[in-house]
Amino acid sequence: MAGILNGLRVVEGSAFVAVPLAGMTLAQMGADVIRFDRLEGGLDAGRWPLAPSGKSLFWAGLNKGKRSIAVNMNHPEGRDLITRTITAPGEEAGVFLTNLRVRGWMDYETLRRHREDLIMVTLLGDRHGRPQVDYTVNPALGIPDITGPEGHEGPVANALPAWDLIAGHMCVSSVLAAERHRLRKGSGQEVTLTLKDIAAATIGHLGMIGDAVLNKEQRTKSGNALYGAYGQDFLCADGRRIMVIGLTRRQWAGLVEVTGTGQEMELLARRTGRNLTDEGVRWQLRKEITEILAPWFAARPVNVIAQTFDEAKLTWSEFRTVKEAVACDPDLGPDNPIFTELAQEGLGRFPVPGHVADFSGLDREKPRAAPSLGANTEEILSEVTGLDDTEIARLFDKGIVGGGRSARLYTAA
Amino acid sequence: MAGILNGLRVVEGSAFVAVPLAGMTLAQMGADVIRFDRLEGGLDAGRWPLAPSGKSLFWAGLNKGKRSIAVNMNHPEGRDLITRTITAPGEEAGVFLTNLRVRGWMDYETLRRHREDLIMVTLLGDRHGRPQVDYTVNPALGIPDITGPEGHEGPVANALPAWDLIAGHMCVSSVLAAERHRLRKGSGQEVTLTLKDIAAATIGHLGMIGDAVLNKEQRTKSGNALYGAYGQDFLCADGRRIMVIGLTRRQWAGLVEVTGTGQEMELLARRTGRNLTDEGVRWQLRKEITEILAPWFAARPVNVIAQTFDEAKLTWSEFRTVKEAVACDPDLGPDNPIFTELAQEGLGRFPVPGHVADFSGLDREKPRAAPSLGANTEEILSEVTGLDDTEIARLFDKGIVGGGRSARLYTAA
Repeated sequence: MAGILNGLRVVEGSAFVAVPLAGMTLAQMGADVIRFDRLEGGLDAGRWPLAPSGKSLFWAGLNKGKRSIAVNMNHPEGRDLITRTITAPGEEAGVFLTNLRVRGWMDYETLRRHREDLIMVTLLGDRHGRPQVDYTVNPALGIPDITGPEGHEGPVANALPAWDLIAGHMCVSSVLAAERHRLRKGSGQEVTLTLKDIAAATIGHLGMIGDAVLNKEQRTKSGNALYGAYGQDFLCADGRRIMVIGLTRRQWAGLVEVTGTGQEMELLARRTGRNLTDEGVRWQLRKEITEILAPWFAARPVNVIAQTFDEAKLTWSEFRTVKEAVACDPDLGPDNPIFTELAQEGLGRFPVPGHVADFSGLDREKPRAAPSLGANTEEILSEVTGLDDTEIARLFDKGIVGGGRSARLYTAA
Repeated sequence: MAGILNGLRVVEGSAFVAVPLAGMTLAQMGADVIRFDRLEGGLDAGRWPLAPSGKSLFWAGLNKGKRSIAVNMNHPEGRDLITRTITAPGEEAGVFLTNLRVRGWMDYETLRRHREDLIMVTLLGDRHGRPQVDYTVNPALGIPDITGPEGHEGPVANALPAWDLIAGHMCVSSVLAAERHRLRKGSGQEVTLTLKDIAAATIGHLGMIGDAVLNKEQRTKSGNALYGAYGQDFLCADGRRIMVIGLTRRQWAGLVEVTGTGQEMELLARRTGRNLTDEGVRWQLRKEITEILAPWFAARPVNVIAQTFDEAKLTWSEFRTVKEAVACDPDLGPDNPIFTELAQEGLGRFPVPGHVADFSGLDREKPRAAPSLGANTEEILSEVTGLDDTEIARLFDKGIVGGGRSARLYTAA
């Protein structure tokens, strides 16, 4: 195994999007990531989408490149095994990443008794200790209120679990920052983040809190318009819809140029006494601008527009369904070096993404499939936890651990 | 300056969301982040939202805690100053973060002639070298197609620039991973990411590519329903709307329990021959489930529901506008240790977020305001670039650098 984080070992106790994504990202960067689960699998073991077989594509996607150990944590011996796995020796080990809040044996204070320099990164729901999910944090902060078609009544939630995804990547940087600190100072620590804080801080970073406090007029739903400058969706002659960007001065000038609407924009500017080279003015006059531009798009099919826009180096794209995108866009398939076609048992064959960042000092890592539940129980107990074959056999026989040997037998059958 | 990344120095050449967010995040973790801009400011200097004064709240939010240097990069001396700033000595310096693609003097190959172990992290639009923004990547991958009210015709884009935000945090982890590698192996490198690859890989991680390839039936718009299990928005007796989660078995059982709908759910299960403890069945039968639950919510105001749900430890939240959230939610104000009320010149007073992660080994850093353009030109030229006062004065007089002294004079006037 190569990869930029080669040598680092992270133990993950998790479910759902954020922390599994964090562990998977670390694994795709070359870390040895061990995810532990109870014998029947975690809360996300059957999360949708599913393959035709009923197996979870969600699990397969968010656990790529990890090792899996399945343990009965209701049994004291099981809890002891997880403790030993988390706190196993090794200069680059002793990193625990979790969104489970298990009081007692899995507390930072308890775990660090077994390894003084432990790093534990915990993602919680909110600072009051309540569970939160992307679907509750988002409404509470107002994003669905400003999403959706203009005039539509009621909130519109996004189909993408954006806060979970951001939280996952913030867990990655928290691990790396704490490990950097440990390397220099020798000390570990507990790092705590909450999903709601991440969302609250982010809307602050984007200026939305200042906007809410300082301005009388508030942002409302504006359909697919680019906020604060010009960018709009247009229906083309062939019934396809495209998104066109006039954010920078260059993009705006180019858009006016290729559509031949210079005179009309000039008239609009004169009529309103506003300067369209000011991005905020374009935002305020977006409806008038769109009215001027729309006929040009309505008269041309996408392929003609594409050629014109690409020649002029304008920024635009076509609206597609996910299926269309996967079928027609080479960026979503093996033509793109981040993707590899993998045939996965019980799932089928489809393009699987590896880590996105290209580190010039290293070869690009191919994505490795997710393990089945407990696929690595035996090797982890042997290599990491340091048990001998007799002990491991006893743990399997007593049903304190699962997967591993049995999983292999099952596969061979 | 304390903070977990204390000692690290990053030079940032950027605009818009992703890379400014990355630099800001590193700064809030304690790194010394120097953002350079041309004399008239970057492409995002006036980005919306704006304060009543016309100053950009966007700039203020995404450049917190950085130092700013303003340089005329059309002049060879200006380019030389930026080169020297990027490649200045220091074991923890020599990290350059950018989304500008400037061929020639700002190429990795050119810059590394001045510092062999340079780390350069570049975020591009797509792998073909085309510019892309959140608003173009998102339509191309199909997210707006599955967002929005059921039955609504046409795509619905999200109001949150989710891909930009994710890209920013992936730039943070790319910097930290490359710097970790340099510390161990001594060598720097170029790291390249693209916004489109980030989005494409992410939908793959979430199982959406496998779903598109393997399944006949495709995901469609489903309003505010939680995908793949149960979660739905409800209108309450007082006209407020709430989001209720029945994702895990515990949440689902609790929801049925507090609403007293056990018998009706039992009947639904019998009638359909399906098992509602299976999360996928709840997703498929979400309309029937919602029909059973809706009258309970319609008969009660939010405050009554809140008490019942909180006592039962269920996961739910209220839909709010951003303004309501800022006005009523203590998580968005100084009651939350991540926020500090700052009075910023030309903007006004409002709660400003610091870094979200709490590192137990260090005190929490208070957020520091964004610099005005070129506010630190003089000190950077002196401390980092190593120029003497005479040289600095000459550069200001020749108009090769800006801000700094002049900015201070302006403030004093």
